[in-house]
Amino acid sequence: MNVRRALLSEFVGTAMLLCAVIGSGIMAERLSAGNAGVALLANTLATVFALYVLIELLGPASGAHFNPVVSTVMAFKGRFGADRRFWLLVLFVAAQLAGALLGAWLANAMFDLPVWQTSNKLRASPGQWLAEAVAAAGLIFVVLRAPAGKASTLVAAYIGAAYWFTASTSFANPAAVIGRMCSDSFAGIAPSSALAFITAQFVGGSAGAWLSNALGER
Amino acid sequence: MNVRRALLSEFVGTAMLLCAVIGSGIMAERLSAGNAGVALLANTLATVFALYVLIELLGPASGAHFNPVVSTVMAFKGRFGADRRFWLLVLFVAAQLAGALLGAWLANAMFDLPVWQTSNKLRASPGQWLAEAVAAAGLIFVVLRAPAGKASTLVAAYIGAAYWFTASTSFANPAAVIGRMCSDSFAGIAPSSALAFITAQFVGGSAGAWLSNALGER
Amino acid sequence: MNVRRALLSEFVGTAMLLCAVIGSGIMAERLSAGNAGVALLANTLATVFALYVLIELLGPASGAHFNPVVSTVMAFKGRFGADRRFWLLVLFVAAQLAGALLGAWLANAMFDLPVWQTSNKLRASPGQWLAEAVAAAGLIFVVLRAPAGKASTLVAAYIGAAYWFTASTSFANPAAVIGRMCSDSFAGIAPSSALAFITAQFVGGSAGAWLSNALGER
Amino acid sequence: MNVRRALLSEFVGTAMLLCAVIGSGIMAERLSAGNAGVALLANTLATVFALYVLIELLGPASGAHFNPVVSTVMAFKGRFGADRRFWLLVLFVAAQLAGALLGAWLANAMFDLPVWQTSNKLRASPGQWLAEAVAAAGLIFVVLRAPAGKASTLVAAYIGAAYWFTASTSFANPAAVIGRMCSDSFAGIAPSSALAFITAQFVGGSAGAWLSNALGER
Repeated sequence: MNVRRALLSEFVGTAMLLCAVIGSGIMAERLSAGNAGVALLANTLATVFALYVLIELLGPASGAHFNPVVSTVMAFKGRFGADRRFWLLVLFVAAQLAGALLGAWLANAMFDLPVWQTSNKLRASPGQWLAEAVAAAGLIFVVLRAPAGKASTLVAAYIGAAYWFTASTSFANPAAVIGRMCSDSFAGIAPSSALAFITAQFVGGSAGAWLSNALGER
Repeated sequence: MNVRRALLSEFVGTAMLLCAVIGSGIMAERLSAGNAGVALLANTLATVFALYVLIELLGPASGAHFNPVVSTVMAFKGRFGADRRFWLLVLFVAAQLAGALLGAWLANAMFDLPVWQTSNKLRASPGQWLAEAVAAAGLIFVVLRAPAGKASTLVAAYIGAAYWFTASTSFANPAAVIGRMCSDSFAGIAPSSALAFITAQFVGGSAGAWLSNALGER
Repeated sequence: MNVRRALLSEFVGTAMLLCAVIGSGIMAERLSAGNAGVALLANTLATVFALYVLIELLGPASGAHFNPVVSTVMAFKGRFGADRRFWLLVLFVAAQLAGALLGAWLANAMFDLPVWQTSNKLRASPGQWLAEAVAAAGLIFVVLRAPAGKASTLVAAYIGAAYWFTASTSFANPAAVIGRMCSDSFAGIAPSSALAFITAQFVGGSAGAWLSNALGER
Repeated sequence: MNVRRALLSEFVGTAMLLCAVIGSGIMAERLSAGNAGVALLANTLATVFALYVLIELLGPASGAHFNPVVSTVMAFKGRFGADRRFWLLVLFVAAQLAGALLGAWLANAMFDLPVWQTSNKLRASPGQWLAEAVAAAGLIFVVLRAPAGKASTLVAAYIGAAYWFTASTSFANPAAVIGRMCSDSFAGIAPSSALAFITAQFVGGSAGAWLSNALGER
């Protein structure tokens, strides 16, 4: 792994992912005439397509994590090697968070909105926290068990389902939480709701890794 | 086949399937502003994606049946071996029904609804019973004739079509009937409508196996 | 080719295709609260999924034509062999038309509608005839140029696009015209509009074969 | 490369692409009862399916560019050979522009509209220009980094996402701008908005090629 390229890949990929999630959220809200079902359908479609493309194109350079929970699990699984895995994890997460912010700002700029903004959308209830844990558990389960060459399709399809079957529309990604804090739209999340979401994501991610172990080697 | 892992796979898979079906049904009903077409589109998309992911990931562990009609046909076809197939079938069905209940409860909990509930949605007419038979016949036909490695895509696509072309939105699965009895939502079915649906599914499944035989070896 | 199995395949496949097209049309019209865009989206999704599944499963038995224009082109291309191709073509077309009628009646029965009915939906304008010719030209072009193993995906995707970009929602199939005449729904076509549609389909199919020749061997 | 066939392929492919984009735009606008979200969902689906089919079928004959920005990048990358690349580029672009016009006129004719028309839909704001640059950068990035045999799926999925996440619904193609100028519909663009869009597309395309270089060889 070429570290410089891997970090560029995580930065660009997370930026494009958040740009796609937030941009399509803004577009969907504007066009769907108050029917939030239509808006979430469009948001889902754009996210599924974007995830598939980004994982397919950037997987070779960095593994296409775009997600601190995924990178953390990969560090534990030894994908960063033994010696320097802590620092690589820190760098990956930093690239992901920076990319998420850039992606949010880019979406805001494209839609002629103030680049700097924060969300007012509260997302806080026991059900939503459970939903984030379930969403992240499923995502880690998919990542750990996807057959070779199918991660792009499986992760994209999983998120497409989870947008609808989890009560939180499945952020499942701390970088997505950080990016969406900067969008006062359909896709946003208020900063005060962020910490609980991120905590639930790490708890759920651990549960997903545990469940995958219980099913044995793929 | 490692039986313990196979049963865990059927339990987890059926739970996630029902959680996806019911959870997306609740979300779709909440968001779609009274347009049931938009709601069923979302429910379809989430179910198709979830089925594809679950069959792809859990196929190696248990065959990814998640459905007592499928397991029964597989038992007749000798996939459980000769000696112990009756008991394996019983265990598979038990794991599927338990998973279906867990999935329904998990969906209810995520959406901050009472975990224990039963549906009031009557689904009873000759057309609906015919529809369930057609839906299950088609599913078994697909399962028996899918080329190697394509069952995940074909089953998911088939169910995506059958949600719309059958008058019953294609349960086609007794475990789905049991799980959906525990959801008083768009996706639910009243307990009094359950037995006729399950009967129609087994009748249809037999017809599907017969039709596949009539077409000869794949 | 086993002729008996091939004819059964064409009969069953065309029946399921028309059942899917008409059934999903009835369901979509009922659920979409007057928004014909939502209804056609659902009808498109169901048709795309059904076509993909049917071509994948029944291609080995009969080539999965389900369409007299396709069978006619295949007869000219020599796919039925030299000696008996005229009679095989007649039998294929007969199986397709009988299947289309059965599929329409099955859809009507599932939705608790009169099994025997005819459509009142006039579809007649120069634009619609041009549209049917374009739709059939494109379909034949796709069929003749699809790489090995990709016909199922390509035909399904093509029809998914053509439902929207042709003014006639792309019947592109005389068997579909016959079946849809028996459904007084969103998906129907009045008998008086049928002959012009079928003529346009054969004219367009010829144009598609000509265009494929002009581009040379694949 | 057989030049005559390549030019026919670019002409036919760009015509069918624009016919699909504009035709589905007209149909979507007519059917969606004022819900522009539903209309853009349908337009997206039709475009994604059409792009996938056209790239798959016509890639062998011409590379399936259908887009002057793509052809220009390919000329710089040496895909047209060394000696005659300037003239081949000119011929490709000419075939694409002529095809785009034919496709627009064909769509208009199918929907019983005046064949000759121009759009009144102004698309001009700094956000829209940024959006076109982002859209074209992403497209070129996808084209340059797609693994062998996956360009059809990746380009189609990318455009499906970009229709929603860019503020301009992602033309990303000067030939699309020329064709859509001839459609006074949902999908159109006023001639006075065209030059800025095309300029942004070439600037963005260059940025995408630069970013792909920065990530090194695939």
